[in-house]
Amino acid sequence: MNLKSILYVLGYVLAFTAAFMLLPVIVGLIYGEYLAAGSFLLCAVIFGGIGLALTRLKARFSVFTVRDGYVTVALCWLVMSAVGALPFTISGEIPSFLNAFFESVSGFTTTGASILSDVEALSHSMLLWRSFSHWIGGMGILVFILTILPTASEGSSFSLMQAESPGPVVSKLVPRLRLSAQSLYGIYLGLTVLEFIFLAIGKMPVFENFCITFGTMGTGGFAPLNSSMASYSPYLQWVVIIFMLLAGTNFGLYFLLLCREWRGALKMEEVRWYYAIVALATLSISLSLVASGQFNSVREVLFQVASIITTTGYATTDFALWPMLSRGILIFLMLLGACAGSTGGGSKVSRLVIYCKVAVREVQTLAKPRAVRIVCMDGKKLEDPVIRGALLYLVTYVLIFIISLFLIFLENLDFETSFTAVAATLNNIGPGLGALGPTCNFSFLSPLSKLVLCFDMLAGRLELFPILILFSRRAWGRS
Amino acid sequence: MNLKSILYVLGYVLAFTAAFMLLPVIVGLIYGEYLAAGSFLLCAVIFGGIGLALTRLKARFSVFTVRDGYVTVALCWLVMSAVGALPFTISGEIPSFLNAFFESVSGFTTTGASILSDVEALSHSMLLWRSFSHWIGGMGILVFILTILPTASEGSSFSLMQAESPGPVVSKLVPRLRLSAQSLYGIYLGLTVLEFIFLAIGKMPVFENFCITFGTMGTGGFAPLNSSMASYSPYLQWVVIIFMLLAGTNFGLYFLLLCREWRGALKMEEVRWYYAIVALATLSISLSLVASGQFNSVREVLFQVASIITTTGYATTDFALWPMLSRGILIFLMLLGACAGSTGGGSKVSRLVIYCKVAVREVQTLAKPRAVRIVCMDGKKLEDPVIRGALLYLVTYVLIFIISLFLIFLENLDFETSFTAVAATLNNIGPGLGALGPTCNFSFLSPLSKLVLCFDMLAGRLELFPILILFSRRAWGRS
Repeated sequence: MNLKSILYVLGYVLAFTAAFMLLPVIVGLIYGEYLAAGSFLLCAVIFGGIGLALTRLKARFSVFTVRDGYVTVALCWLVMSAVGALPFTISGEIPSFLNAFFESVSGFTTTGASILSDVEALSHSMLLWRSFSHWIGGMGILVFILTILPTASEGSSFSLMQAESPGPVVSKLVPRLRLSAQSLYGIYLGLTVLEFIFLAIGKMPVFENFCITFGTMGTGGFAPLNSSMASYSPYLQWVVIIFMLLAGTNFGLYFLLLCREWRGALKMEEVRWYYAIVALATLSISLSLVASGQFNSVREVLFQVASIITTTGYATTDFALWPMLSRGILIFLMLLGACAGSTGGGSKVSRLVIYCKVAVREVQTLAKPRAVRIVCMDGKKLEDPVIRGALLYLVTYVLIFIISLFLIFLENLDFETSFTAVAATLNNIGPGLGALGPTCNFSFLSPLSKLVLCFDMLAGRLELFPILILFSRRAWGRS
Repeated sequence: MNLKSILYVLGYVLAFTAAFMLLPVIVGLIYGEYLAAGSFLLCAVIFGGIGLALTRLKARFSVFTVRDGYVTVALCWLVMSAVGALPFTISGEIPSFLNAFFESVSGFTTTGASILSDVEALSHSMLLWRSFSHWIGGMGILVFILTILPTASEGSSFSLMQAESPGPVVSKLVPRLRLSAQSLYGIYLGLTVLEFIFLAIGKMPVFENFCITFGTMGTGGFAPLNSSMASYSPYLQWVVIIFMLLAGTNFGLYFLLLCREWRGALKMEEVRWYYAIVALATLSISLSLVASGQFNSVREVLFQVASIITTTGYATTDFALWPMLSRGILIFLMLLGACAGSTGGGSKVSRLVIYCKVAVREVQTLAKPRAVRIVCMDGKKLEDPVIRGALLYLVTYVLIFIISLFLIFLENLDFETSFTAVAATLNNIGPGLGALGPTCNFSFLSPLSKLVLCFDMLAGRLELFPILILFSRRAWGRS
């Protein structure tokens, strides 16, 4: 265990978190919320100082193994969430630190599950910080640091990026990793600016525009209004639908489009499956709603589908009241999640594609044993470690899901609420169904349940293993 | 595809099914139920004749591949279920053939899910046939035939046994397969006789004793009384508890005990996990019931736990009314199931053990990459194909579960009912929770749902792949 290197990276994370906190300080000053602004400034100064001190360690950054990458990323996310929670408590706006930590974890992991019943009672700087944490967490803070740090070696950067980026395969867009990270953040920033402009054209107030844009692009789901997105005009809802879907698309697609590699872009199987599933889910839910007389508009259905599959979690209607088939499809979309290499969470469409292909191959091999069968994706052979990794992900996912579920069962809520509480946090969606539907919040849960769900949110965002490795005694010995 | 060989084996299955039908004929004659007896006799004569004709094919029995084994077993089970359903419809006791087929599939697959609201209205011979089908299906009809057929070669017998026996590894007890099959059925018969004697000591009426004994040993769950097991004395309930648990234990244990290999018997990890899970589940549910003021006796809790984990499905109380944690544990036990190499269904304890060990190894490998780690069970190394098989089972299981769930969602029942409808059939348990709890029945479902659940029951009993292979076009071509 290379403790010095880990503290070195942690220092950068603290420093950047502190720097990001200057944005809510400014907002607080603009709106005259001096207590809130002061809380952020205090945290920024203290943790910025600690962070800068740690970066003086001059650790050998080049010796990062995969394990070190996982441990570092997990620790950074834990510390970042704890630091991000402090202003809520210091300012007294969320007095309980556990609740503030839940809210902060929910923000950085882009979950969007809230313990607040009245969001609008928060100050502007707190609201902005909640949404901004989505944006930071969406593409990953370490990936952000990699775009700036000049000294990082390729190998150790890759360990960090691998641990923080979602999906079964980490796609380097270009051979040089720093350029890849810069391209990703460039596209991310570009889309963010685009959405801001489109929402501004629809006359969304500037402050809400910032919050909603951060929440959409990070696929987070915190909204500055109690009504989530229901009170906005159809135009604004359409803009959000489109940008939610874009944020859930594999960013590799945009890179190929920017390079004018049209053929490669069209070949991306995961993206095709993703949009096919969105279309199919929208159609099925619409039919099911028509049958039960609850159908309003395609926009309404598509909004909830896009919001759930991209794991954003905004809502324009209380989908907890929909018929079982519609709710069932939403639960499936919750478990599925968005594309790999996007800012969305969940198990990722590409893993579903791998599972289906592996299952079909297995049946075919049984049916015709002598033929050799290769599982391909995007026209390339899927290597055994990738398939193995996807299968292990499923096993670990199911085990974590079951253990979390048991702990939530202690609340004695109904099965749908308990099941979707775990699904909504482990997949970083936000609202569940039943008593945790889009019009409800998580505040009534016991401290134990909140801790379990915090664990699930972090495990989900970091794709299970980085967080699990913290519990392995061997991770703390010599490698 | 070796069609002639398949028809040859199918002939034997038909002939033996017909022979087994003579038992309800005798019961019908004893109780003066001539219509019921006549229906069974008619079916026995017709299908016995067809079966014997097919066995004249003198096919080369020696050329069975794994694929042929799977296809044969799947076809045999389908045909056997259809033939077993006919007497219900011919006698008019279950007028709809779909309902009769559901009941028959539920019997042979040892599920115990019923479409009957008033079981006691059936004639004695029908009741006996329902329970007897559990006993036939429990250890497998092809395994039974292998104990008798002298001509089968080792290789082709193994293909058949592999396809019909549950668990990730098919344990040959002795090197010679026919002796293995005979040992299994010998132990099965011995335990059946023992239970019959113990129940007789407790003064259970002879007819009910037959039904309950068949239902327990086959881990089926059809009962001859509407109250399932609730009206029996504590002594009788204890006997059933013990024999349910024994039927769900890996039969390899009894073989080792008979050979006086005490050390090997103690080493069987799966069995130790199985009893540990039973104990833990009983303790947790008891505590949860005490907390909610619904606790009656350890016997009551242990009865439901044993009934669900062994996938039997008898009930002495309406556990659908228990608090969520208790119900949640039961749902987990439903998905888990009993030991491999037992008559119980489900995913099998040994697969859970493999999943846990593989997940732990993966985290440890990430934590300390240089150490070589082997996954062991019972002190022996688990080979890669076994691990791979268990992982593929999980993938396929989850995919079938999700697709079935969507089709059941069309009924617009609540989530718990829909979820447990699939869980209870795919794992061959019988009753679910919610509207399909132990005091309810499956008759109100639509024909589509019934067909889906029939598919799930067969897929569950044959461990997914034999049934899936029927849908693969390639299975019907030349190998």
